[in-house]
Amino acid sequence: MSVTEPIGFNASGVAAGLKSSGAKDVALVVNIGPKAHSAAVFTTNRFAAAPVIWSRQILSGGDGRVVVLNSGGANACTGPEGFLDTHLTAEFVASELSKVGEGEFGAGEVFVCSTGLIGERLNMRVLEGGVKSAITELSPKGGIMAAEAIMTTDTKYKVSAVNDHGYTIGGMAKGAGMLAPGMATMLSVITTDADVDPDFLQQALSAATSQTFDRLDSDGCMSTNDTVILLANSASGVAPDPEQFQADLIKVCEELAQLLMADAEGATKEIHIEVVGARDESDAVMVGRAVSRSNLFKCAMFGEDPNWGRILSAVGTTTAFFEADQVDVSINGVKICAAGGVGEDRSQVDLTQRHIDVLIDLHAGTHRALIRTNDLSIGYVVENSEYST
Amino acid sequence: MSVTEPIGFNASGVAAGLKSSGAKDVALVVNIGPKAHSAAVFTTNRFAAAPVIWSRQILSGGDGRVVVLNSGGANACTGPEGFLDTHLTAEFVASELSKVGEGEFGAGEVFVCSTGLIGERLNMRVLEGGVKSAITELSPKGGIMAAEAIMTTDTKYKVSAVNDHGYTIGGMAKGAGMLAPGMATMLSVITTDADVDPDFLQQALSAATSQTFDRLDSDGCMSTNDTVILLANSASGVAPDPEQFQADLIKVCEELAQLLMADAEGATKEIHIEVVGARDESDAVMVGRAVSRSNLFKCAMFGEDPNWGRILSAVGTTTAFFEADQVDVSINGVKICAAGGVGEDRSQVDLTQRHIDVLIDLHAGTHRALIRTNDLSIGYVVENSEYST
Repeated sequence: MSVTEPIGFNASGVAAGLKSSGAKDVALVVNIGPKAHSAAVFTTNRFAAAPVIWSRQILSGGDGRVVVLNSGGANACTGPEGFLDTHLTAEFVASELSKVGEGEFGAGEVFVCSTGLIGERLNMRVLEGGVKSAITELSPKGGIMAAEAIMTTDTKYKVSAVNDHGYTIGGMAKGAGMLAPGMATMLSVITTDADVDPDFLQQALSAATSQTFDRLDSDGCMSTNDTVILLANSASGVAPDPEQFQADLIKVCEELAQLLMADAEGATKEIHIEVVGARDESDAVMVGRAVSRSNLFKCAMFGEDPNWGRILSAVGTTTAFFEADQVDVSINGVKICAAGGVGEDRSQVDLTQRHIDVLIDLHAGTHRALIRTNDLSIGYVVENSEYST
Repeated sequence: MSVTEPIGFNASGVAAGLKSSGAKDVALVVNIGPKAHSAAVFTTNRFAAAPVIWSRQILSGGDGRVVVLNSGGANACTGPEGFLDTHLTAEFVASELSKVGEGEFGAGEVFVCSTGLIGERLNMRVLEGGVKSAITELSPKGGIMAAEAIMTTDTKYKVSAVNDHGYTIGGMAKGAGMLAPGMATMLSVITTDADVDPDFLQQALSAATSQTFDRLDSDGCMSTNDTVILLANSASGVAPDPEQFQADLIKVCEELAQLLMADAEGATKEIHIEVVGARDESDAVMVGRAVSRSNLFKCAMFGEDPNWGRILSAVGTTTAFFEADQVDVSINGVKICAAGGVGEDRSQVDLTQRHIDVLIDLHAGTHRALIRTNDLSIGYVVENSEYST
């Protein structure tokens, strides 16, 4: 599992001291070749953090083969000084890696990801100490350590891998709050030893994230730091069928997204909102997302109350194509709302399990989409109202 | 105070038995003339409740002079049968009023408002009993009783009046949850004895609600039943200066909106989000609304944590005109974010009071807007996760 499952990747995760808890907080992922292609997707938040601005430049340069990640500080809204910190981090990683015989590296090959509190500068001395240790620890078995080092309020590390067609795709992710699109608040690094055309790599990653991470909407809050990076090295020598590679990549992203939803802050329910009968996919996404963002709906799920009026009132705020007197809603298989009105008896709905399926049929076409969300629980409020320092 | 403050209006509020608690649940407001002009604004939710669909027709008819309101059931998502219930309610009110010597009334003069659980039919026998009692109780001192009868999860009745320029405007409102635009989930009836041109009446009401109720965004959830009705009878004989009347009407709506915010479900904080330096007013509203809907921001306010990164990350999701490195944010007068980066020390911000002022300066123009919201508290989750029946 994780980013070292494919051939030709080393990783590590160490405790540098950025986190006051003493937990791991600096991770490295290094592509040792033979090739070095990369793709990435970033937050669309206009207050993009310094590492996001930096990593976009690395992506456009096309040579990215290293990812350095830290938890314990987002380096967001930190101004030009924060950007300089990111730049110096990449320079430091490249220069230290070059010293230890892993080859010659330049800062332009180093993606940077940060996560933690917004609006605080990173302690660069501590971070650089962590980078040195992380380089020492680099290993083809370091994937889990790296996954641990990027956790914030996550209670579990998140990794995934697919290895069914002669090549491997492995990945790690973090994220438990600010989980909403574009992408959910998350960092993810995915690696593969498949021999994939670099243009297709970006296309495949964008398609995979739009169907998976982008449709996770836990709390409606978009982060400043969301980043998904895909590194490819062709080490397996296998040039996959593009459709197969796309499907495998989606599988890895899907599993990571599912793990993120399962570990969302304070969540007691994992809710799949499936919208069918939509005129087009964007209508289906719009409707699913409106429901996933209704605090009243999410409180009802926490309270195990099949209050379908809260679903309809959210659907009714959208501009999706439908007629109000044709919409059906089922919760866990019971069609409690039929044709926009009262359906089966709500007492038939059993919401005691952690998993909840909501099915909304707009009766306006043949398209569908699945949005994943969580309930709004007392635990979420408690966790997010504690003082940030 | 309330809807009977102006001359020429009778009102009442009675306990019919729609609420299992035995509290008042049916209200009447009757304009006894000499004139009968009306204006109204309704929810934009596409699952508009039966009484909203009915009352829109009354508005276009132009003769509305009675409002019957019930709590204990929203009559929303109840299909054609629910609409028939509303129609029969109006017929019943008109026929019973005609019997008691209040003049001749037709159903086409009767606005209907309902609030309560979505997706349940009203008990018409109980409602009709309530209407009969309410007619018996009609009085020029019944305004407070009416305001009490429309409460749902409200803990206090809400009334307001302005009487400074020879005429009076009085109003009542209810709403404590599903408080978001268009309008906040609320019912409000406003009355005036001013002699106002009917076309101007609608224009003035639309302008007043757009600046007041529409900018209350407590929980981001739009109701199916929002209705604001304004009845005017010219009884004072005073034809006001239009600008003065507009200002007075805004004052009443503003006070009612403030009362709604103060009583929002579970709220421990009343938050004013003022956006200044916007290119236009709609940009300012967009930014304020994005912040008011950030659960992470709202949890931070509940926790008295001046976590300004959560404000910027919400602002950054909008398409408003601004440069990320120019935005300032102050909380309770402390500019904790300057030019998109770290400002004054967050420890200087005192959030222990109930009232919180957030000021966001986009430095992109001269326009401004004020959005009112609340914190996201444990109480909100508790109140909204309890079983709906």
